[in-house]
Amino acid sequence: MLEAHMLSCMKDSAHDKAHIYRVLYEALDIAQTQQDVDYDVLIASCLLHDIGRQEQFEDPALCHARVGAKKAYSFLVEQGFSKEFADKVSSCILTHRYRKDNLPQSIEAKILFDADKVDVTGAIGIARTLVYKGQVSEPLYSTGPEGEILDGTDDACPSFFQEYKYKLEKLYSGFLTERGAEIARQRQEAAVAFYESIRSEVKGSCQKGLDYLDRYVDE
Amino acid sequence: MLEAHMLSCMKDSAHDKAHIYRVLYEALDIAQTQQDVDYDVLIASCLLHDIGRQEQFEDPALCHARVGAKKAYSFLVEQGFSKEFADKVSSCILTHRYRKDNLPQSIEAKILFDADKVDVTGAIGIARTLVYKGQVSEPLYSTGPEGEILDGTDDACPSFFQEYKYKLEKLYSGFLTERGAEIARQRQEAAVAFYESIRSEVKGSCQKGLDYLDRYVDE
Repeated sequence: MLEAHMLSCMKDSAHDKAHIYRVLYEALDIAQTQQDVDYDVLIASCLLHDIGRQEQFEDPALCHARVGAKKAYSFLVEQGFSKEFADKVSSCILTHRYRKDNLPQSIEAKILFDADKVDVTGAIGIARTLVYKGQVSEPLYSTGPEGEILDGTDDACPSFFQEYKYKLEKLYSGFLTERGAEIARQRQEAAVAFYESIRSEVKGSCQKGLDYLDRYVDE
Repeated sequence: MLEAHMLSCMKDSAHDKAHIYRVLYEALDIAQTQQDVDYDVLIASCLLHDIGRQEQFEDPALCHARVGAKKAYSFLVEQGFSKEFADKVSSCILTHRYRKDNLPQSIEAKILFDADKVDVTGAIGIARTLVYKGQVSEPLYSTGPEGEILDGTDDACPSFFQEYKYKLEKLYSGFLTERGAEIARQRQEAAVAFYESIRSEVKGSCQKGLDYLDRYVDE
């Protein structure tokens, strides 16, 4: 039933149902290393954590964690779960998105936070970011005044390279559980290798090409 | 002027203007290894090779190579280029997409074919495929009846894994120039490594997660 409600709320393919299942699986992995985990709260929180995404997609001023926390609380109470249970799940959802004034408190909230973050690491994090760039029609990289390719550092224009430099490259610290940090570390090399490969492919090709063009125009 | 016309025709971000410039740069690289290349024909063909994309996007029954070849011919003649020149460029564009009955004949056509194909290899090929999957809302992978993740082999449903297995994995043969084949070989490892990483990340996480869930449900 929670699964059916989650499925009915999922429409965007960077946060699609496959993301929800991955977060659930990672959360269960992390939970094995923790004491006194309430698995009912954890599983419900994982399944429902992104049900506010559609609202944020339609109105970017809304925060999907806040919207989702409210929606999950109402939904669970309507379905006959206790207010105490709905409140615990709602708190996990509220704090799963990093915000200084909303840090995860319970162990279930910390596990959800880490599991969600693990899904932005490694090759899967790269893939999800690229799919999202396609959805919002942002480019892979920006170019400078001479046609040269920018690597994303200090780049003001949204692109995959920019997001890699601003977000993906930096997210390997700040995990709340040792197991979350460990999974992230295991995946880091794949993400770094991909970025270095694509940057080297496109920058190498561009530099040579611009040189050939200069020579051709000069002739 | 050719560049301005190309820019006015480019709307889709897997075949955006950055793709056109990369193809141009690769073509100039490959051209250095060939004799008697007509650079005017080659450069015009590169800049205009995807101007039929929008028509194919709107009506998938249309072939962007055929549409583009016609559009390029008309455009060049209108702009005052000779019919002979327009015809040479048009032929290159017609044969840049692999079709058994339309193989590239001239050296410029062979270079364009290889340069366009190089842009599907390596990390850049992976990135472009993922962006496209986002645009058309296809998933990263499909799942089987037990929730297990399919690796794309013999998979009938469109997904990134399926396209990797059907297309990306196989495209490192069939280049028409030695230099094109060489650039592709240099990039192959990055693409293979990325697919192996993402497959291992998601399949590993899924198998463990399903086992934990089984145990939890049994308790």
